[in-house]
Amino acid sequence: MKTRAAVAFEAKKPLEIVEVDLEGPKEGEVLVEIMATGLCHTDAYTLDGLDSEGLFPSILGHEGAGIVREIGPGVTSVKPDDHVIPLYTPECRQCKSCLSGKTNLCTAIRATQGKGVMPDGTSRFSYKGEMIHHYMGCSTFSNFTVLPEIAVAKIREDAPFKTSCYIGCGVTTGVGAVTNTAKVQVGDNVVVFGLGGIGLNVIQGAKLAGAAKIIGIDINPDREEWGRKFGMTEFLNTRGMGHDEIVQKIVAMTDGGADYTFDCTGNTNVMRTALEACHRGWGESIIIGVAEAGKEISTRPFQLVTGRVWKGTAFGGAKGRTDVPKIVDWYMNGQIEIDPMITHVLTLDEINKGFDLMHAGESIRSVVVY
Amino acid sequence: MKTRAAVAFEAKKPLEIVEVDLEGPKEGEVLVEIMATGLCHTDAYTLDGLDSEGLFPSILGHEGAGIVREIGPGVTSVKPDDHVIPLYTPECRQCKSCLSGKTNLCTAIRATQGKGVMPDGTSRFSYKGEMIHHYMGCSTFSNFTVLPEIAVAKIREDAPFKTSCYIGCGVTTGVGAVTNTAKVQVGDNVVVFGLGGIGLNVIQGAKLAGAAKIIGIDINPDREEWGRKFGMTEFLNTRGMGHDEIVQKIVAMTDGGADYTFDCTGNTNVMRTALEACHRGWGESIIIGVAEAGKEISTRPFQLVTGRVWKGTAFGGAKGRTDVPKIVDWYMNGQIEIDPMITHVLTLDEINKGFDLMHAGESIRSVVVY
Ligand SMILES: [Zn+2]
Ligand SMILES: [Zn+2]
Ligand SMILES: [Zn+2]
Ligand SMILES: [Zn+2]
Repeated sequence: MKTRAAVAFEAKKPLEIVEVDLEGPKEGEVLVEIMATGLCHTDAYTLDGLDSEGLFPSILGHEGAGIVREIGPGVTSVKPDDHVIPLYTPECRQCKSCLSGKTNLCTAIRATQGKGVMPDGTSRFSYKGEMIHHYMGCSTFSNFTVLPEIAVAKIREDAPFKTSCYIGCGVTTGVGAVTNTAKVQVGDNVVVFGLGGIGLNVIQGAKLAGAAKIIGIDINPDREEWGRKFGMTEFLNTRGMGHDEIVQKIVAMTDGGADYTFDCTGNTNVMRTALEACHRGWGESIIIGVAEAGKEISTRPFQLVTGRVWKGTAFGGAKGRTDVPKIVDWYMNGQIEIDPMITHVLTLDEINKGFDLMHAGESIRSVVVY
Repeated sequence: MKTRAAVAFEAKKPLEIVEVDLEGPKEGEVLVEIMATGLCHTDAYTLDGLDSEGLFPSILGHEGAGIVREIGPGVTSVKPDDHVIPLYTPECRQCKSCLSGKTNLCTAIRATQGKGVMPDGTSRFSYKGEMIHHYMGCSTFSNFTVLPEIAVAKIREDAPFKTSCYIGCGVTTGVGAVTNTAKVQVGDNVVVFGLGGIGLNVIQGAKLAGAAKIIGIDINPDREEWGRKFGMTEFLNTRGMGHDEIVQKIVAMTDGGADYTFDCTGNTNVMRTALEACHRGWGESIIIGVAEAGKEISTRPFQLVTGRVWKGTAFGGAKGRTDVPKIVDWYMNGQIEIDPMITHVLTLDEINKGFDLMHAGESIRSVVVY
């Protein structure tokens, strides 16, 4: 079949909206009509050529919501007309990782996903006879896409696509980091570094978990209002402050240090500050942000020996098929908010404008509605 | 009163065995006759002048066992003739840390302990009228010493002093890192870097916890026999191997990486290897070794984002008054061994020989029996 898609033919070039060829689903695969997709920093990271493993040409996008239109042989967990969210972290429920019960990092299709192809080693996308790569196993910048059955979460049908697509990455990453990875409990003190889309979702996750203090940190004063909207109780503008001063301020604000800190900046210096601002004895710091290639985190081992814990999280520690439908419920029940975060709604033709807004820091989330 | 003690008058000089003056216990303090004391690397670290906060003159030693001989006003938890182990990590059961239930790092007397004095700000030791510092709140290289009540663990009276003194530091540090900090479970795979006194205790802790594979790592081939004695199932001599080769070997031996790794070397490069040898998704690395001043640990944040956890432990995460008596029980029940680790028994007059043995790598543990 034919489908409209925004194709990344080369790094550092705008996406081109063209009609591509899409093969139907093979065994264990499903065809999904994407109804809406968010634009995430990871898409920009790849498009800007910063990901050394980025493949071109490819169809980016990994934060979508849509409807199953066709299923391949052997598919049992979804059927046509089911509403789904594509999962860049699949959940096969059979691999060592899935069966461990300790991680969401399913390895069933990791190798082929990293190569931009489907599990059988081939792509379903092509343009003028040339193969186009899948991206993060999703490629939601195409109106129609093919996914492995284990890489779609079936969700309730009353959830609007325009907002629930954000659960495909940003919401789950932020909220899940709090609920799955940190396991914040009622009364804990939480510090969030970086109040972009992920940071705001960490804030609302912390509020949902009953955190006592939720301190937001950014160097952009405009973000204070955003943070307060989602449950931030205190704001610290750290522009011009050094590492030691930030740590001291947080220690003072939290009577000794935070119970949990979250880095949503991707800056390895901030990651260190986030760790060292944790309370001696039990504070845990969770890295969410994706660092520049080659950058490393450092600290004195004394920080860990005196009880701080350094962790990270991917996709908020969420097991996609199991946890994503629950987060959709939280949204539909009003336990978390998404609507105010969708600052810009675009057509597919306007998708490059969405990346401009992101780079200018003007959007929290831009969403393309097909 | 007078008591014989090995005094560190200066860094980098042998200890001198002299008769010092000891004031009796003040309010909340107890006088303990030390019956035996181990020699630990931390004593050597201070004596060798490597600890920038080391104070002289002082009476070192922090791994003892003895008998309460006198109690000061207000002491209620121990009485004369009780057998006790001094605690360099006290347990007041009243500070924020003790009450948190999340850490053993009691802060009740931390400030004065770091200054080499008792909680009232003065020392009980003097020599020819000159004040001598306490060390780690213990000073077990003195035949008699004074300790705060919250810094002694009451233990059963049938436990021999010569071996149970080792529970005052090394045994608890190693075994506790497994049981309290890592919380190793039956069937887990464990890798131990550095098979000295701490490493061997990690090994026997892992065995006690039912670990499936216990891989010991050292560059000294003689340590293989030692490791196997306490439950090590496989040995890897990493002499001449680089970081990547060690990680690859461990990943191959553990089907993807260790569930838990322990650094008992204090070498920050080894700490990185220990982290990166952990299983993706859930492996945890615990730092036990004390690093050289100024040295830092580093890794790519990707290691944490893909599910590895970096932790540390002090005194094996043990709450001294609560947990040390239990470890003495484990020893007396035969669940852990200590006797074979006590390779040298010395008199106080021979204490400098004990440090020579340690530096030469010839002892696992030397113990001074008074
Ligand atoms: Zn994303
Ligand atoms: Zn799986
Ligand atoms: Zn010690
Ligand atoms: Zn305490």
